[in-house]
Amino acid sequence: MPTHTVKFLPYDMQIDVEDGDTVIRAALEAGVHVNASCGGEGVCGKCRVLIEDGTVDGGTSEKLSVEDQDKGYCLACQAAVKSDLVVRIPVESTIDAGVLKMQAAPRRTAHIREMNFEELKEKGLFVAPVEKKYLELPAPTAQDNLPDITRLISYLQLEHDEHRLDVTLAMIRKIPQVIREDDFKVTATLVRPVRDVGKTRIINIQPGDTSEQSYAIAMDIGTTTIYGQVIDLISGDVLAEHGEFNGQISYGEDVISRIVYAEKPGGLAKINEVVIATINKILTRIIKRSGVNQENISTITLAGNTTMTQLLLAVDPRSIRRAPYVPAATLYPPMKASDLGMELDDHVAALVYPAVSSYVGGDIVAGVMGSGIYRSEALTLYLDVGTNAEIVIGNKDWLACAACSAGPAFEGGGLKFGMRAAKGAIEDFSIDPTTFEPMIITIGNVRPKGICGSGLIIMAAVMFEMGIINNLGKFDRDLDTPRIREDHGIYEYVLAWQDETQIDRDITLTEIDIENLIRAKGAIYSGCMTLLTEVGMSIAEIEHIILAGGFGSYVDLEKAMTIGLLPELDTEKVTFIGNGSLMGARMSSLTNRIRRDVVEVTKKMTNFELSDTISYMDNYVAALFLPHTDMNQFPKIKSRLETRRKMNQI
Amino acid sequence: MPTHTVKFLPYDMQIDVEDGDTVIRAALEAGVHVNASCGGEGVCGKCRVLIEDGTVDGGTSEKLSVEDQDKGYCLACQAAVKSDLVVRIPVESTIDAGVLKMQAAPRRTAHIREMNFEELKEKGLFVAPVEKKYLELPAPTAQDNLPDITRLISYLQLEHDEHRLDVTLAMIRKIPQVIREDDFKVTATLVRPVRDVGKTRIINIQPGDTSEQSYAIAMDIGTTTIYGQVIDLISGDVLAEHGEFNGQISYGEDVISRIVYAEKPGGLAKINEVVIATINKILTRIIKRSGVNQENISTITLAGNTTMTQLLLAVDPRSIRRAPYVPAATLYPPMKASDLGMELDDHVAALVYPAVSSYVGGDIVAGVMGSGIYRSEALTLYLDVGTNAEIVIGNKDWLACAACSAGPAFEGGGLKFGMRAAKGAIEDFSIDPTTFEPMIITIGNVRPKGICGSGLIIMAAVMFEMGIINNLGKFDRDLDTPRIREDHGIYEYVLAWQDETQIDRDITLTEIDIENLIRAKGAIYSGCMTLLTEVGMSIAEIEHIILAGGFGSYVDLEKAMTIGLLPELDTEKVTFIGNGSLMGARMSSLTNRIRRDVVEVTKKMTNFELSDTISYMDNYVAALFLPHTDMNQFPKIKSRLETRRKMNQI
Repeated sequence: MPTHTVKFLPYDMQIDVEDGDTVIRAALEAGVHVNASCGGEGVCGKCRVLIEDGTVDGGTSEKLSVEDQDKGYCLACQAAVKSDLVVRIPVESTIDAGVLKMQAAPRRTAHIREMNFEELKEKGLFVAPVEKKYLELPAPTAQDNLPDITRLISYLQLEHDEHRLDVTLAMIRKIPQVIREDDFKVTATLVRPVRDVGKTRIINIQPGDTSEQSYAIAMDIGTTTIYGQVIDLISGDVLAEHGEFNGQISYGEDVISRIVYAEKPGGLAKINEVVIATINKILTRIIKRSGVNQENISTITLAGNTTMTQLLLAVDPRSIRRAPYVPAATLYPPMKASDLGMELDDHVAALVYPAVSSYVGGDIVAGVMGSGIYRSEALTLYLDVGTNAEIVIGNKDWLACAACSAGPAFEGGGLKFGMRAAKGAIEDFSIDPTTFEPMIITIGNVRPKGICGSGLIIMAAVMFEMGIINNLGKFDRDLDTPRIREDHGIYEYVLAWQDETQIDRDITLTEIDIENLIRAKGAIYSGCMTLLTEVGMSIAEIEHIILAGGFGSYVDLEKAMTIGLLPELDTEKVTFIGNGSLMGARMSSLTNRIRRDVVEVTKKMTNFELSDTISYMDNYVAALFLPHTDMNQFPKIKSRLETRRKMNQI
Repeated sequence: MPTHTVKFLPYDMQIDVEDGDTVIRAALEAGVHVNASCGGEGVCGKCRVLIEDGTVDGGTSEKLSVEDQDKGYCLACQAAVKSDLVVRIPVESTIDAGVLKMQAAPRRTAHIREMNFEELKEKGLFVAPVEKKYLELPAPTAQDNLPDITRLISYLQLEHDEHRLDVTLAMIRKIPQVIREDDFKVTATLVRPVRDVGKTRIINIQPGDTSEQSYAIAMDIGTTTIYGQVIDLISGDVLAEHGEFNGQISYGEDVISRIVYAEKPGGLAKINEVVIATINKILTRIIKRSGVNQENISTITLAGNTTMTQLLLAVDPRSIRRAPYVPAATLYPPMKASDLGMELDDHVAALVYPAVSSYVGGDIVAGVMGSGIYRSEALTLYLDVGTNAEIVIGNKDWLACAACSAGPAFEGGGLKFGMRAAKGAIEDFSIDPTTFEPMIITIGNVRPKGICGSGLIIMAAVMFEMGIINNLGKFDRDLDTPRIREDHGIYEYVLAWQDETQIDRDITLTEIDIENLIRAKGAIYSGCMTLLTEVGMSIAEIEHIILAGGFGSYVDLEKAMTIGLLPELDTEKVTFIGNGSLMGARMSSLTNRIRRDVVEVTKKMTNFELSDTISYMDNYVAALFLPHTDMNQFPKIKSRLETRRKMNQI
C-alpha cells in the first residue's frame, strides 16, 4: 500500500497516511481540528477543506456550493487521499499562532505486536506439543503377531526413537480398523508431556500419511465475547478466527451475576450448557472456514477468567464471590474436550489455562505468557482493560498482579449516550479552541449513535487540555457556546444535535459521564500505584507498557496519559497485543515451553487483593483528578498546561 | 462341625466325614461302591446298607421291607451320619477279597487355597493401592485464601507427607461444596501409582471422616459367567459375591460366535451394552448385599479373556479370530468406570488385567498372579479348564503358556446326555465289579437328568480301571450285563433306566461321549507336554499342579490322573484356587505390588500357538489313549492295571 504525505495549512502540520485514507482521518491523526458533526457520513457538510495541491478521490457533495467546488473545496470526510497533498483548513475567525500550536497532540495508538512463530523457534521457546509420525508397519504374520497397539509402539520406538509412550482407550478402539485400512500405513499423533518426566501420549491414529496436517484450537472465553482460532501447528499460522457473544450474557452481564445465576437450582448446569453451546458454534464456524479436516485437530487450549473457567468446567463458583474469595482450583488437569461437551473428536485434549486467584484468572496468565512479560528484563506494566481491569507489573524476576473493577465506562457502559465500539459510536474527537465546535468521527463513518470508551477518553483529554473542563472534570461555566448547557441540573456538552444523529436526540457528554471515566481511570492508575508501592518501586521506573483487550487497540495513548489513565511514557514504549488471552492460548497450542513455564509463572505472580491493601484507598483518592493530584507524575501534561496558562495570561 | 469316622464292611475301609453328611457320600469318598440309580433322591431303594454300630438320622423308607428296617437297614442316600459308624454293605454275590481290594481309589479333590491377606502383608507384597486420609483443614481467611484444591493438597503434604499429587476434574467439581459441608473436615481418597515414578491421584473427597470405609470391586468377566466381589480394602475380606450368566450368551456360546456377532453392523455396540448390563446387575446386587456406601468404592478390577476384554471395552475383536490372531492390545490404560457405562461413581477407576495374546487372556494372567505361580520356586502346572483350557507351566524364572480348545466335554457339552454341573447332573459314580450295577450320585441328590463334566471323568476312570472300557475307550463287548448295549450301532452303558430319571428316557454314557472326553483330555495333556518339550523339560519334573475354574473344584484328582488328564502326582501337591481370574482381580484390588509385577509377568509369559508348534500333533495323537500310549508316564495306574491283570489271570 503506497503512503502519501498530507500537509495541513495553516497549522503547518503533516502526516503520512495510507493511500485511500480519508482526509479527515489524516487530520485527526495529525491532531488537526476540522469541524464535523455527522461522524464522517458526509451529510453535515461542515468539514469542507481546500485541496491546494495533489489529488483526492471523491469529496464532492451537494453540501458544497458550486463556487466552493470550483475553488477546489471538498468534504474532508468523503475525500480519499490519492497522492501527497497540501490541504488548507478554513479558519473561521482570526486566531493567533499560539492557538494553532495548541492543537491536540497527534493521535498515537499503540504498536501492535503480533506473535512471531519464527522468533519463538529462534529463542529456543519452541517445543512441539503435538507431533504426527508416519509409519509403514510390517503386516502381522504367525511369527510376528504382536497386538496392534504394541506393533505401533514398537515401530515408533524403532523408527522414530520414541519412548515412554502411553495410549488411550479411544486409540485402542480405533486401531484394529485403522491399521488395516491402508495396509498398515498409518500416522500416529503424539502429544508430548509438559514435563520431561511425563509420558508421550499417542492420542490418534489415522490411515495413510497425514503428518503434514496438524492443527489446534485456541480459545479465549471472555465474559462478553468468546474468540476462537484454528492454528496450523506446522506453520504457526492462524487459519481462521471468529468471535461470538458469550451466550451466558442472557444470564447476567458480569461475572457476579453469572455466579448468582449458577447458585440457583440447575443454574450451574444451564449456564455451563450455554457457554459450551457458544463454543461449539464458534468451533463449527472456524473449522469450516479453515477448511481443515476436524480429525487433524489434536488440542484445544482455553483461557478465561477464574469464573468463566469454573463455569466452562461446571465447577461451582459460589465461593469466588464471597470473602475471602476462594476459587475451587487454579490449576486444572488435562481433560478430554468431548467430556466437556465440545463437539470435537474424542481424542482431542482440552487444556485450560491456570489462574492465580479468584480475580486474576487464566486470561491474564495467558496474557502474561503471550506478551512475554515473564521473560522481560524491563519493568513492564501489563494492562487488560475490560469491565474488569487486570494489572500485572513486573519482569522476569517478579510479577505483581491485581484486578480492579473499572466499571463499564471503558466499554461505553453507564454513560448517558454510551455504547460499545460498534458502528455509529463516536470514536474520535477534536474541538475548535475558539468556537468550541466539535469534530466527530464515528466507527463506520455514519451519523453518530453514541459514545464508545476510546472516544470518551479522547473527549475528556481534549476538553481538559483546552480548559473546557477542569481537573475535577467540571465544565467551565463561563464559556460562550450553546454546546455547553445545563439539563436537569447536570452540565453537558452537545456532541451532535438531534438532526445530525441517528437517534433523533441531541447526543451529549455529561459531567456524570466524565466523573465515571475519572473513577474508572482512577481505579486502574491507583491499582498500578498500589502494586508498585507494595513492591517498593515507583511509577517512574516503568519501562514498558503492554495493552491488551479490545479497548487497547483504539485508545489514543497521548490522551490516555493526559487524563492519567496510563503513566506518561514515550508512546514508542507502549505495545498493543490485542486479545492477550487468545494470544496466550495460541502460544500454548504451539509450544510446550509455555505450558511448562506457566505453572512457575503463576507461582511467581503475587496477587494483591486491592480492597485489602491499605495504600489502595489513598492512591485511589489521589487519582480522582485529571490527570492526578500529584502533577509531578505527569510532567508532559504539566508542562503543556503551564504553557497554556502563560499564553492565556498574555 | 464335629467329624465322625465311618467304617465300611466287608471292605474294611474307613473315612472321616462331617456330621450330617449322608452315608452314601461317605462311601463314595471312601471309594466304596453302593448300588444306587436315583441320584440320591431315595426313590430307587437300591442303596440299602446295615448300620452295625452308631447313629444315623433318617434313612428309613417304604422302599425297605419291615424286616430290613427291624434289622437296622437304611437307605444310604437318606441317612445322615450323626456319630462314628460301622456300616455293612450287602454284597449280593460271593466275591473274593481281591475284588474287594479293587474298589476305586478313594475320592480326592484338590486342596482349596484361599488368598490370605495377612500372608500378603508378611511377604511384603502389600502396597496399598488406595488410601483414605482424614484432614481437619483450617478455614480460609483473607490472608489465606488458597484455592480449595490447593488447600487440600498443601495439608496432605504437610500432615500426611504426601507428594506428587494429581487431581481430576471430578474432584475439582466436588470440592467447593464438600469441603464446606462439615466445616473443612474432609477425607481424601488417594490412588497410588503402580510405579514409583507416577503420581498419587486424589480421586475423591468426602465430608467428615470416612477413612475406615474403603472398598473395591473385583470382577471376572467369563465367557459364560461373570462373578463380582465387594472387597474391604482394610481387612482384605470379601463382603459380598455374586455371579450371573454373561448376557452375551444369547449372542453366541463361545468367543468365536461372539466375535462373529460383533462384526455385524451395530453388533459390537450391542454386545458391549449387554455385558455392561450384566456387570451392572451384579454391581447392584453385591453392593446392596455388602451394605457398603457406594461412594466408598474406589476401584474396579476386571479380568477376562482377550475377547471378553475387548468386548467389555468396545474394541473391535475381528482380528482375534483370524490368523495370525492379533488382539488390538494386551495392555490397557486405567479408565473411568463410568466411561465404560458402569453404574459406579464418577471417581471410580477401572483397571483391566493385561493379556498375553489373543488366546491367553487377562483371566489367565490374573490366575497366574492370584495363584502365585510367578513367585514359585517349584515347577508348577497351572490349568484353567473351561470350554477353552489354558495351560501355564513354569515358576518364578519362566512361564510358558498356551491355550487349547478342549471342546465342551468338561462342561458336559457335546455328550448325548451332557449337562452343566447343575441339579440332577450325575457328579459321582461307582460300579459294582461283578454285577456292573452303578452307584449314581447327582448334584442336589435328585433323580438324574444327565451327566456333567466331573461325573464323566469319574465314569471313564472307573470303567477303565475295572476293565469295562479299554484304553481306546471302547466297551468290553463280552460283559454280561443288560446295561451295556448297542444303539444304532453305538455302544453305550445305561446309567439309569427311564423310570429312575427325571427325563423319562434311559440315561446312557456312549462310546462317542468317551471319545469326546479322550480328545479333550488329550488336547490338554498334549498341550502340557508340548510346552514342556519346547522348554526342554519333562512331565516328571512337575512339582505342583494348580487347578482353576469351576471344573477344578469337583474333579476327582485320582480319576483325572487315571484317564491321563493330569500327570500323576501326589494329590497333596494339587491345589485348587477356584476362580483364578477373580482371585487375581481381588489381589490386584488389594495391592499395587501385583499391578506392578503384572506387566513384567506378561512379558515373561511366552505364548505358544499350539497349532503352529510342530510337536503338538505328535503329542496329541499319543495322548488319545487311556491314560496315554506311554504308560511309563503313569506309573501308578500302570501298576494297578498290572495287578488287576495278574488277578484276572489267577
